[in-house]
Amino acid sequence: MKNKKLVLAYSGGLDTSYAVRYLSDKGYDVHAAMVDTGGFDEEDILEAKEKARIMGAASFRVLDVQQAYYDQCIRYLVYGNVLRNNTYPMSVSAERMIQALTLVKFAKDINAEAIAHGSTAAGNDQVRFDLVFSALAEGIEIITPIRDQNLSREEEMDYLIKHGIEMDWSKAKYSINKGLWGTSVGGAETLTSDQALPEEAYPSPLKKTEPRDLVLHFQKGELSGIDSHQYINKVEAIKQLQSIAQDYAIGRDIHVGDTIIGIKGRVGFEAAAPILIIKAHHLLEKHTLSKWQLHWKDQLANWYGMMIHEAKFLDPVMRDIEAYLESSQETVTGTVNVRLHPYRFELQGITSENDLMQSKAGQYGETNKAWDADDAKGFIKIYGNQDIIYHQLHKTKK
Amino acid sequence: MKNKKLVLAYSGGLDTSYAVRYLSDKGYDVHAAMVDTGGFDEEDILEAKEKARIMGAASFRVLDVQQAYYDQCIRYLVYGNVLRNNTYPMSVSAERMIQALTLVKFAKDINAEAIAHGSTAAGNDQVRFDLVFSALAEGIEIITPIRDQNLSREEEMDYLIKHGIEMDWSKAKYSINKGLWGTSVGGAETLTSDQALPEEAYPSPLKKTEPRDLVLHFQKGELSGIDSHQYINKVEAIKQLQSIAQDYAIGRDIHVGDTIIGIKGRVGFEAAAPILIIKAHHLLEKHTLSKWQLHWKDQLANWYGMMIHEAKFLDPVMRDIEAYLESSQETVTGTVNVRLHPYRFELQGITSENDLMQSKAGQYGETNKAWDADDAKGFIKIYGNQDIIYHQLHKTKK
Amino acid sequence: MKNKKLVLAYSGGLDTSYAVRYLSDKGYDVHAAMVDTGGFDEEDILEAKEKARIMGAASFRVLDVQQAYYDQCIRYLVYGNVLRNNTYPMSVSAERMIQALTLVKFAKDINAEAIAHGSTAAGNDQVRFDLVFSALAEGIEIITPIRDQNLSREEEMDYLIKHGIEMDWSKAKYSINKGLWGTSVGGAETLTSDQALPEEAYPSPLKKTEPRDLVLHFQKGELSGIDSHQYINKVEAIKQLQSIAQDYAIGRDIHVGDTIIGIKGRVGFEAAAPILIIKAHHLLEKHTLSKWQLHWKDQLANWYGMMIHEAKFLDPVMRDIEAYLESSQETVTGTVNVRLHPYRFELQGITSENDLMQSKAGQYGETNKAWDADDAKGFIKIYGNQDIIYHQLHKTKK
Amino acid sequence: MKNKKLVLAYSGGLDTSYAVRYLSDKGYDVHAAMVDTGGFDEEDILEAKEKARIMGAASFRVLDVQQAYYDQCIRYLVYGNVLRNNTYPMSVSAERMIQALTLVKFAKDINAEAIAHGSTAAGNDQVRFDLVFSALAEGIEIITPIRDQNLSREEEMDYLIKHGIEMDWSKAKYSINKGLWGTSVGGAETLTSDQALPEEAYPSPLKKTEPRDLVLHFQKGELSGIDSHQYINKVEAIKQLQSIAQDYAIGRDIHVGDTIIGIKGRVGFEAAAPILIIKAHHLLEKHTLSKWQLHWKDQLANWYGMMIHEAKFLDPVMRDIEAYLESSQETVTGTVNVRLHPYRFELQGITSENDLMQSKAGQYGETNKAWDADDAKGFIKIYGNQDIIYHQLHKTKK
Repeated sequence: MKNKKLVLAYSGGLDTSYAVRYLSDKGYDVHAAMVDTGGFDEEDILEAKEKARIMGAASFRVLDVQQAYYDQCIRYLVYGNVLRNNTYPMSVSAERMIQALTLVKFAKDINAEAIAHGSTAAGNDQVRFDLVFSALAEGIEIITPIRDQNLSREEEMDYLIKHGIEMDWSKAKYSINKGLWGTSVGGAETLTSDQALPEEAYPSPLKKTEPRDLVLHFQKGELSGIDSHQYINKVEAIKQLQSIAQDYAIGRDIHVGDTIIGIKGRVGFEAAAPILIIKAHHLLEKHTLSKWQLHWKDQLANWYGMMIHEAKFLDPVMRDIEAYLESSQETVTGTVNVRLHPYRFELQGITSENDLMQSKAGQYGETNKAWDADDAKGFIKIYGNQDIIYHQLHKTKK
Repeated sequence: MKNKKLVLAYSGGLDTSYAVRYLSDKGYDVHAAMVDTGGFDEEDILEAKEKARIMGAASFRVLDVQQAYYDQCIRYLVYGNVLRNNTYPMSVSAERMIQALTLVKFAKDINAEAIAHGSTAAGNDQVRFDLVFSALAEGIEIITPIRDQNLSREEEMDYLIKHGIEMDWSKAKYSINKGLWGTSVGGAETLTSDQALPEEAYPSPLKKTEPRDLVLHFQKGELSGIDSHQYINKVEAIKQLQSIAQDYAIGRDIHVGDTIIGIKGRVGFEAAAPILIIKAHHLLEKHTLSKWQLHWKDQLANWYGMMIHEAKFLDPVMRDIEAYLESSQETVTGTVNVRLHPYRFELQGITSENDLMQSKAGQYGETNKAWDADDAKGFIKIYGNQDIIYHQLHKTKK
Repeated sequence: MKNKKLVLAYSGGLDTSYAVRYLSDKGYDVHAAMVDTGGFDEEDILEAKEKARIMGAASFRVLDVQQAYYDQCIRYLVYGNVLRNNTYPMSVSAERMIQALTLVKFAKDINAEAIAHGSTAAGNDQVRFDLVFSALAEGIEIITPIRDQNLSREEEMDYLIKHGIEMDWSKAKYSINKGLWGTSVGGAETLTSDQALPEEAYPSPLKKTEPRDLVLHFQKGELSGIDSHQYINKVEAIKQLQSIAQDYAIGRDIHVGDTIIGIKGRVGFEAAAPILIIKAHHLLEKHTLSKWQLHWKDQLANWYGMMIHEAKFLDPVMRDIEAYLESSQETVTGTVNVRLHPYRFELQGITSENDLMQSKAGQYGETNKAWDADDAKGFIKIYGNQDIIYHQLHKTKK
Repeated sequence: MKNKKLVLAYSGGLDTSYAVRYLSDKGYDVHAAMVDTGGFDEEDILEAKEKARIMGAASFRVLDVQQAYYDQCIRYLVYGNVLRNNTYPMSVSAERMIQALTLVKFAKDINAEAIAHGSTAAGNDQVRFDLVFSALAEGIEIITPIRDQNLSREEEMDYLIKHGIEMDWSKAKYSINKGLWGTSVGGAETLTSDQALPEEAYPSPLKKTEPRDLVLHFQKGELSGIDSHQYINKVEAIKQLQSIAQDYAIGRDIHVGDTIIGIKGRVGFEAAAPILIIKAHHLLEKHTLSKWQLHWKDQLANWYGMMIHEAKFLDPVMRDIEAYLESSQETVTGTVNVRLHPYRFELQGITSENDLMQSKAGQYGETNKAWDADDAKGFIKIYGNQDIIYHQLHKTKK
């Protein structure tokens, strides 16, 4: 009998390495697929590839989806200034959705009969993978050995040793997940409610202390340039900004939020470029969008973020919100002056030909020609009409 | 003929000093009322009193409304974590409403026939004063000499000189407004879109550089203690925190937002205590409120902030939102650990007996007893049902 | 060994009758509890009691919770004008929550070790029962034989016959659920998308054709009187209105909506009193609440309805929303004139001392003294300021 | 000196006829423009033309903008199921915006130096005209003789008589405004809060009593066919439906709402086609959109309606909302069965290949293969997790 073809969401860690071996033993041809959303360097990949070989994978593939990740997701997170619970750029949540989508496509491309992931029963990721697989890969079986067997790391290592594979699986103190849109840091202190992560938990140490000024350029809501350099490739721009800003150890925080499964979770992160981009972009919007544009963007974008976080990226409402967000960026073009300091940054101001504040029609707090004292009095009378009526009516009644 | 009794919202500055003189000359008995929302020290008051005397005020009164300001307004701004445009604690907007309410009450108490303020036609404050006066002081005339005459500072000084009053009215580079809920800083750079305020524009210079740890205690959403000290008087607690934190120069930023009159405005502020309180309070809520409590609080509180900013404090919807916010604080009790650094602070974590994260029922990312792999699979199937149906239906159609 | 004490949510239908027998056979003392939310008459109860006896129930109890149902739930549905998907008064969803709460209380009162319901795996009701039981009855086992065994009606009847119980279980064409807040009608046509329920599917036939005028009195948002009769007991008022209005066959419709389990469902209903009360109440609010009170009530009340529908009545956000809704009803006092016709009704108008429309301060479309042409021009200039600036800026750029 | 060229928003009524004469006397060349949004028949136009000639207009033009009205506005009102205060299709508010836009364009086309309308200071329309004119016609003067002079009808007639024009201006009891999206009826009873409009106040009397079945076809949210007839021209489809449905006197009601100027207003309307289209469209959406698509459409569309009502059609947020609404209609294709009765109609059901309810994946209330009892239990455990944790925690504390 021919083996069944299976695609495995593979990372090179103990869980998914075990899964390669275990599923191969169960009679699957395991095609280990590493979806690159910007978090792997060459060394990571070579190491993972070698491990996959040792574990007995039928094939190993790196699927580079950074551009798609940007186009389908990050772009909208910027348009929407999306920070989950006003803090977290959703570094992990967003990339899981793209990884799941990529894996489905790959599984279909190679006619796989099964698709596997290494998530446990305890977290968000299983929901993201399962839901996308179920919705888009009808007929392809979903296999989740780690969740089903509920093994400890020791049991996994024992299994591998029994099958002749001995490697060093020493666990880092913190579990790190790196991608184009930030790096999450979990473990130890994040399992408590009251302790902060220590300096050394963050992968990017403080390297620079001298303040540095940057000019960020935005074109219809997208980061399009840094200082005098313009970028056609927006992924490049993000990476370049990250490489500059991470030396200032900015964009670090701890996110406390609600997981899909109803419990509260806490995770540290560092996301220098995402935080800088979102905050600078938001400031530019405050100058170039109308009050109600700002208001509604917020509502929709928060929802958009929540839905991605909660594995609902495929709900058609997301396409509607994307249409909204895209429309809203028509005038969000200009530059933002930023000053980097150790652990923090300042937004100095913006320049934009669409700046509604610098219009000739009105300058706040200054006498101006667009209206006079009588206009203002008339305005206030009618603007306050309902409140005036309400209070006069209710006073009269007393 | 007897003079008409008039209450003037008085600050001791050139505009309202001119107004005392001018309105006295027009035949009013001018009762200069200084509403103290936490921004005046003894010297300010003595100086203002002396000026009022020189200008010919019929009386001078300081109305201390710090407690009412806290009870009727600041409390809700904390419950709601209200930061206008995600930045500004509304230091000025909130206190103007309370000042207007106080002046109406005072005018009625002394049977005044007119009530005056010194705002121009160009800004938000005129709307706040006029609207409250119109709604609550029916039959009392509103008088606004500065708005009506549209005079320059020079013209005001000339008038005073002609009436025998020569004083030094040299204008500060920045216009400062100080109160219990923060200090605003306007002028020079804030009239541009691209320039930050310089260090010296902020009234509270950096004085401490050594990090300092603080424990903030909250009782049903209110700041009730700092370190080992508990406060019955919440105004006291805020002032104490301000005195500690302002030496770190934290809580500074520039707010860009929409004014009531439809134009964009920009204003600097420093608000060490307000920002610390709001951020710490919000973190505590993330641990103690349900997901949807957090969601709806945000919606309502943003609206609440906007309405106060836009002079709509008297709309009855505000009382409804206050009822909501108060209800939401039932479980927001606990402590927050904060570390102060120069120009920034870290929220380290919280402790609360209402912490939903530390419940025995579920710990994120850890294996737990509340559900198993099969439960999780069942959950995801049904949780994703609509998206699965949607995509299967639309795939079938293709 | 002593039998375990079990409380069963009992209705007298085949499913729960089978459950009495089956669970008794499994060694439970089955206490059959019928929670009366206004849908049972004496005959229903006597019949159910007799069946419970035959099936071998250890006890039979009717728990009348109409007042609690009104106080804890219906009241807020009226305050909020809650119609799911703008159509359905949630006749079933609301009462299931109250039934579940009542059963938990009863189970604790009699020290039951288990609690059972007869819902299947296919619908909403299982979620409502399970969720409330899990949240409030920790340590009490949840037993669901119908869901677990997935039996057909024939299999249930066979089981009963084998145990010596032969009864007529002929199924009605439509499944009817009656309660204080309306009657749902499911089956046959409601399983299609394109067919309406026939006249005979609705339990209350048209009996009156002569139009009838009614005056409905509201006191702080609650129906307090009909014509000249005032009601202390609000449950009584609803029942009286229902008895009058159902003869006109009004309040019928088909609700199409999203179930908790992610699929679309369709159900018919007749709810003469609920629809009349909600529509009349809403009209009264349009006259007595401010624009933003109306706006936010809608948002929160829709959410409130969705949460009840989706079994989330215990989420603490619901208590916050109730606080909001209660606050909003302060001024909702007055009378509404209604005319009943066959199958429809007209809202003629309202009378209220809180009517903001009949204030002296402004009458729409009539010349009035509160403002003049110049005031209006001033108002519009400033009211339109941002749009004017926006379009002048963007025109200039072209 | 050459006369100034002026465009007047002209209707042929007393106010605008007076304005032609008065402004001509003031030295303007008055170009009377009648913007046809679907409410004028040939006779209306001929009469208005003749009056314009008599009054001394420099020219008379009918600007037919029905198609633009549909494309730029009505289409989105349908997508959004927009009924102001859940009642009113905004028959007047919507067309005023289009009329204002059309007049600006016409004024620019003929190089007019002024633009005039006949609104008073008391209502909404002045805001709509002034705001659009100010935003889009910079440099063109706005002239409003009726508002400025605040004349009674008698004074207007006297003026005309003095200038040799004697005509019959007898006023109808009700002021009627007819257009493609409905007819408003104001006066007499609508000025009270408690009285309904009598039968004869409505322009379209009941003519048919025999029920009639209709099939309405929708293509991506637009009415595209009636029974077996398909329409390329959507304006035609609306008119045809109106001609059928108005004989049943359906779509009548009284709207009570907040005007731009802060007071409450009440207006009757009949809008058979608009109400039918919106209700049928909404039902089709309930079957073809996801739960959250329905939710967010509602929020945005209500806001969209409010903004149009309040003269904010030019705010750029409106273009963003339109992008959202258009995106949401992708799957809203199918037919809706409607039955017309005198004064009311029933929605019988829908047929659509996008019907999410008739998917094979799940049928509500029926046993199905997509999940089983264990899945359901797992779902509920995790779905209810937060509420369970919350209540267990707070019980433990007691």
